[in-house]
Amino acid sequence: MTQTRTAIMGLARRYLPILDWGRTYNREAATSDVVAAVIVTIMLIPQSLAYALLAGLPPEMGLYASILPLVAYAIFGTSRALAVGPVAVVSLMTAAAVGKIAASGSPEYITAAITLAFLSGLFLLALGVFRLGFLANFLSHPVIAGFITASGVIIATSQLKHILGVGASGQNMLEILVSLFEHLNQINAITLAIGIASTAFLFWVRKGLKPFLLKRGIKPKIADILAKAGPVGAVAVTTLGAFAFDLGEQGVKLVGAVPQGLPPLTVPSFSPDLWAELIGSAVLISIIGFVESVSVAQTLAAKKRQRIVPDQELIGLGAANIAAGISGGYPVTGGFARSVVNFDAGAETPAAGAFTAVGLAVATLALTPLLSYLPQATLAATIIVAVLSLVDFSILKRTWIYSKADFIAVAATILVTLVLGVEIGVSMGVGLSILIHLYKSSKPHVAIVGQVPGTEHFRNVLRHTVITDKTILSLRVDESLYFANARYLEDRIYDMVAKRPELKHVILMCPAINAIDMSALESLEAINERLKSYGVTFNLSEVKGPVMDRLQRVDFLGHLNGKVFLSQYRAVAELGGTLTEVAASAAAQ
Amino acid sequence: MTQTRTAIMGLARRYLPILDWGRTYNREAATSDVVAAVIVTIMLIPQSLAYALLAGLPPEMGLYASILPLVAYAIFGTSRALAVGPVAVVSLMTAAAVGKIAASGSPEYITAAITLAFLSGLFLLALGVFRLGFLANFLSHPVIAGFITASGVIIATSQLKHILGVGASGQNMLEILVSLFEHLNQINAITLAIGIASTAFLFWVRKGLKPFLLKRGIKPKIADILAKAGPVGAVAVTTLGAFAFDLGEQGVKLVGAVPQGLPPLTVPSFSPDLWAELIGSAVLISIIGFVESVSVAQTLAAKKRQRIVPDQELIGLGAANIAAGISGGYPVTGGFARSVVNFDAGAETPAAGAFTAVGLAVATLALTPLLSYLPQATLAATIIVAVLSLVDFSILKRTWIYSKADFIAVAATILVTLVLGVEIGVSMGVGLSILIHLYKSSKPHVAIVGQVPGTEHFRNVLRHTVITDKTILSLRVDESLYFANARYLEDRIYDMVAKRPELKHVILMCPAINAIDMSALESLEAINERLKSYGVTFNLSEVKGPVMDRLQRVDFLGHLNGKVFLSQYRAVAELGGTLTEVAASAAAQ
Repeated sequence: MTQTRTAIMGLARRYLPILDWGRTYNREAATSDVVAAVIVTIMLIPQSLAYALLAGLPPEMGLYASILPLVAYAIFGTSRALAVGPVAVVSLMTAAAVGKIAASGSPEYITAAITLAFLSGLFLLALGVFRLGFLANFLSHPVIAGFITASGVIIATSQLKHILGVGASGQNMLEILVSLFEHLNQINAITLAIGIASTAFLFWVRKGLKPFLLKRGIKPKIADILAKAGPVGAVAVTTLGAFAFDLGEQGVKLVGAVPQGLPPLTVPSFSPDLWAELIGSAVLISIIGFVESVSVAQTLAAKKRQRIVPDQELIGLGAANIAAGISGGYPVTGGFARSVVNFDAGAETPAAGAFTAVGLAVATLALTPLLSYLPQATLAATIIVAVLSLVDFSILKRTWIYSKADFIAVAATILVTLVLGVEIGVSMGVGLSILIHLYKSSKPHVAIVGQVPGTEHFRNVLRHTVITDKTILSLRVDESLYFANARYLEDRIYDMVAKRPELKHVILMCPAINAIDMSALESLEAINERLKSYGVTFNLSEVKGPVMDRLQRVDFLGHLNGKVFLSQYRAVAELGGTLTEVAASAAAQ
Repeated sequence: MTQTRTAIMGLARRYLPILDWGRTYNREAATSDVVAAVIVTIMLIPQSLAYALLAGLPPEMGLYASILPLVAYAIFGTSRALAVGPVAVVSLMTAAAVGKIAASGSPEYITAAITLAFLSGLFLLALGVFRLGFLANFLSHPVIAGFITASGVIIATSQLKHILGVGASGQNMLEILVSLFEHLNQINAITLAIGIASTAFLFWVRKGLKPFLLKRGIKPKIADILAKAGPVGAVAVTTLGAFAFDLGEQGVKLVGAVPQGLPPLTVPSFSPDLWAELIGSAVLISIIGFVESVSVAQTLAAKKRQRIVPDQELIGLGAANIAAGISGGYPVTGGFARSVVNFDAGAETPAAGAFTAVGLAVATLALTPLLSYLPQATLAATIIVAVLSLVDFSILKRTWIYSKADFIAVAATILVTLVLGVEIGVSMGVGLSILIHLYKSSKPHVAIVGQVPGTEHFRNVLRHTVITDKTILSLRVDESLYFANARYLEDRIYDMVAKRPELKHVILMCPAINAIDMSALESLEAINERLKSYGVTFNLSEVKGPVMDRLQRVDFLGHLNGKVFLSQYRAVAELGGTLTEVAASAAAQ
């Protein structure tokens, strides 16, 4: 009885981190959390509307996605500072995924977006329950950086139509630019003025407002909050202007009627066809969202020496997305900018997220009537200023200097994302980085080694002056042996043996071989047979313990036409004939 | 002028191996080749018909696929013994690919098969010209073995309908068995008798005929040829029987009218829709065909110390498939059984293949009228006996003993191929073996090491009695660092550091690190920053030359909150405090 109770409590504590931090929650922490929540709420109102617009959805869905999902994450998430909600890249990916299925803004489009959130939530939950969080590690950092940069460029470009006040569309740079160009004659001057003014103002708010206020003697903390309220200011001023001068009549696109009230209860579609069409996108969105979210959460946790549990984060984000799917939202994840703001504002626990949800709920109840006069150009300006901080082409330069292989992966990811769209871009980036890794390890470094005179050390004949013997070929392979490089090793050895008619012994020096898979074992057996038929022995030296254990299981050593030596020195000494010293330059194979 | 000529001759010799062996071709070699060709022709006539039947194509297409493609391979191929033509697994894959597009035997089905050969030829050619043959190395041996075994089982099962004389269909085991069961009431007794008798006879020919003949004093060479002619005997006897007793009238399915004459010139379809539907299958067929072919060619070449050039083999097989596509054939590759027969019969050069083509052409001209009475049950028996030699479940046992990871890959490949069909099976096998490899290298072996008393060696604290120091954590990572394991290493180090409050120095021992990619570099930078904030230094030891070169390019060492040491011993000596000897058992982390 007690045992069952303990087991249940253990499970509950594992899957419900709120039981952990909730026990010690006190007034002090609550005060910090409420302060942080107020600041994040102010920041999140325009962002939620803007990202919904970016996703091609009605603005209220952005607000809905910022209420229940935050509560769900507060219960299941492990990060104490992560602020969950709609973010730019995931909104763009949502538009790309749902845009394949229905026309932007149609009821089918909205249902598909809700279903996408639900599916993505289920997928994240499943990954978390089965502890498959490590799969996210298969994305290389430069590929993600390149993808985010390219997405930022696409997002900023896609918002130009709102700044110019023209109708234009497209999922990738080329389509967007062509469409913009075709519609240039429709530019609305007032919209353009609002767009440019808002963008300029927001850039100034970001860079110049705080120093400006500090210089005028405003306290740093208040200056900080005012700087963060900049976008709300832009929204308030332009909305007021649009109302006062009835700009909607003059062709300025406004947000229009936003339903007042709490999020509705929605049911995602359970159509198998729709699920089949969305599942690939849901997987991509989940993984990209998870990777971004966890990296933000880990960075912030490290500053306070706290820990993130990635598999539980999957459950937290999964719960948040399922919550989005049943409350009229669309896919959400942890956002970088807002999490940093939350952290800086002093959020102590995930409760800050729940308080933010309350703030957003109040806004949805009270402010929505005011939003109908909000110009879309203002929201576009908010998005452009926010995403340009994601754009960072320096990754190209850094990878170029450090590793051409990484450079190719990141350059291809950026190019393909820009030209063919986000889904193809990120899939190709992941595939390419895996292929490049396999390719690199498929041609391992194989060095012919010789004895450093007067020592027991063996070094590459091309780099050092060493002693070798005509009848002995000593090879060192600097890579684990597996299917992708097994055949390559075979070919290299056959080549070298064919060129050395006086050869009697081959010694494979194995200190860098951490594993030998079945394919490589078969290759070693083939090498052994081939060398046997040539009258050459095949020996191994410095084999690691775990590798040796495995070779013994299949009696490879029993068939070995040679011996296994503890060290390369002993191998050469036992097999050795006359040793001749050779200079490094003379030993080119 | 002369230079251009030399360059052209060089290119010609590279891409046309016939120029190489052709120069020294003489009567002796020609005699050997002709003898081999006669034997292979006898073997190939029933096989060509049978495999076309397996692919759901008219029998003559099997013959056509054995004429021009062989000539093309003789010109472009590098293997001196490889016999190209229709083979069992590729025929099954063709049926699976084309069966998705059109009804078996319809004109669209035939066009699709021809186009598939053409596409597959183009793909192989492209791989060869761009020297991408190494891609075939990404298939693990056990996965291929499992796939071939499962294919053999499917093929044998699919032929049971011909033995039973019922109509049944299906692309995978389940469908085939269900369909067979549903049609059991239609069994044709005479067909069944022919089928069982032929199968039994062919098994006996394969195992018992040669010893039987030898015992009766027949010369070994003649006994050998007679054993190989067994299938032709079965074909002749059953055809004659069907003709004499007019078995077609009694419900025995016969091959029927086979057009007499040389292969027609055909034009593959250039419909973009069809190409889009077939390209995936063409890639799978090409790669599986290439892998099988090259492994046969290499095995045989090794016996005579000859060499295969894999990238030129791609061109040879590409040319053969394009030839199939323009002469009414379907995808071909190098077959195992017939190549061994060709080799054993003494084939000296690829000319043997060209002579085989002549033999088949003569057969197509002269024998086709006789074939119309050939019972399909006889061909099914030929296929069953041939493919059962491909079935080898011992790979399951061998991988189980050697490596559970390989076992999972091979078991999944067999199961999925049997249940869901060949294309999904082989794709999943390849994907799974890559995932397993990434997974294994994503959790590298990280050992805490200590000094072996009285030496400069450092060993795993869990395996040896060594000396450690409370203020120093010495770690050895037995894997190159890259995106899939970078985060894991970070987490492991943070964990270990968090448990050791007295820690002042971390030393990462790098002798097994052959490469560090950009993602891993960023992780090392993150570790460095994190340790710095904890007041712990981060040091490296025994870094390999190429890895060091790269780290210097980005000034990682400039930011390093610690040093790089030539050896672990020096590192500990320089950073060291009081050393304490610990026994292996006491050092569990």
